[in-house]
Amino acid sequence: MLSKGNAKLIKSLQLKKYRLKEKLFLVEGAKTVLETLKSAYSISKLIVTDKFYESYNSEIPESVDFQIVSGSELSRLSDVKTNEEALAIVQIPVPATMANTADQLCLALDDIRDPGNLGAIIRIADWYGIRQIIASPSSTDFYNPKTIRASMGSFLRVNYHVIDLPAFFKDNTQFHVYGALLSGDNAHDTVVRSPACLVIGNESNGISSEVQKLVQHAVTIPRYGAAESLNAAMATAILCDNFVRFLKK
Amino acid sequence: MLSKGNAKLIKSLQLKKYRLKEKLFLVEGAKTVLETLKSAYSISKLIVTDKFYESYNSEIPESVDFQIVSGSELSRLSDVKTNEEALAIVQIPVPATMANTADQLCLALDDIRDPGNLGAIIRIADWYGIRQIIASPSSTDFYNPKTIRASMGSFLRVNYHVIDLPAFFKDNTQFHVYGALLSGDNAHDTVVRSPACLVIGNESNGISSEVQKLVQHAVTIPRYGAAESLNAAMATAILCDNFVRFLKK
Repeated sequence: MLSKGNAKLIKSLQLKKYRLKEKLFLVEGAKTVLETLKSAYSISKLIVTDKFYESYNSEIPESVDFQIVSGSELSRLSDVKTNEEALAIVQIPVPATMANTADQLCLALDDIRDPGNLGAIIRIADWYGIRQIIASPSSTDFYNPKTIRASMGSFLRVNYHVIDLPAFFKDNTQFHVYGALLSGDNAHDTVVRSPACLVIGNESNGISSEVQKLVQHAVTIPRYGAAESLNAAMATAILCDNFVRFLKK
Repeated sequence: MLSKGNAKLIKSLQLKKYRLKEKLFLVEGAKTVLETLKSAYSISKLIVTDKFYESYNSEIPESVDFQIVSGSELSRLSDVKTNEEALAIVQIPVPATMANTADQLCLALDDIRDPGNLGAIIRIADWYGIRQIIASPSSTDFYNPKTIRASMGSFLRVNYHVIDLPAFFKDNTQFHVYGALLSGDNAHDTVVRSPACLVIGNESNGISSEVQKLVQHAVTIPRYGAAESLNAAMATAILCDNFVRFLKK
């Protein structure tokens, strides 16, 4: 059985305040835990079931502190009721500075608030080979368990930098700044110049007026029906597809 | 205060079995309720707060049976904790036969199970002007409250037909049947012939083997990174954008 201290720590890591204090976050589910074991992330403690241990003990490095618990104990600890295999307490790495890559496209998130949306956006970025996401300090936390879960392991491959967006764009004038706006040019015809940075705004209010001033090219997904809007993650998926399609031609 | 019978009815409509028995479903939230009031759907009972009534009483037709309750009573009734304005009990219409439209594109859902995904797909269809969705009997219920909510009012503008997909394709040979598969042609280069029907498969298992046999053109969203897959609703969004882009040229 897990010590009371560890059980309490796991519960506390649902909240950002404790994640920041402990510099730890949670990874849940067999598949993502296995991917994390193979990554550069440091695992502080691994909690697994018998079933997981039997199948994957060879994948657990000797240096990793692990404990075997029952499936029901694990699912009580986990935010996901169906997680009955593995949970890792993982160290939050020191934030990297924005890597000076020659990447053609990065994303900027201006106040994305829903952890599920952020996770979905990370997964999309990873699908399209986008390695850098910058985000306003008001955006939801990258290490929220809901975000980590929705990213389906893609959090391991995408760098996330929390930064003041207006200051970033003023300091990094090499970027061609595109913004998802309702009254922009048709995304199907957009000429994308690289390095491009695509700004996605808040779920309800879109891109803030301060950031809008720094957007050089407004782009809009053409609408042929009557829905008023698209969900932020859907819009990101469609725009990434359009941008990458142009850049890879 | 609402009668016990009505409160019980509302709770029961969370479940498909009671929706089918009563031929009723729930619409929650001020915005979607207002849209529903203007639609061809018949409202069996409308439950609103003072606040809603003050702002929108002119929008409630005389024929509609309505009752004013407190915000806290409404939010206890509703599946959405933040719904403090309006809830409608709405009649499920007699299923239309698939309208014999000259539409260029329709969607076929082969066992989409997540109500949130279905709602998101309905919203995307509505954005792209796709008016017909056909779905396998195993797909999640169109009238699930989570689906209605995620569709953001788009359920009002999209026709949904539950039908045996293999039989449908055998009987309707006019369709060019496209399927979202992992080993198909690049969606960016797909030549779309209309009338087209795009098949989207189950979240975990993709398109069933029975339906795959009837897919004439496999299409794949090109991947440039390392994510293993895309969420079904995201994939639908990206493919609809590609298909409509081709058809509207």
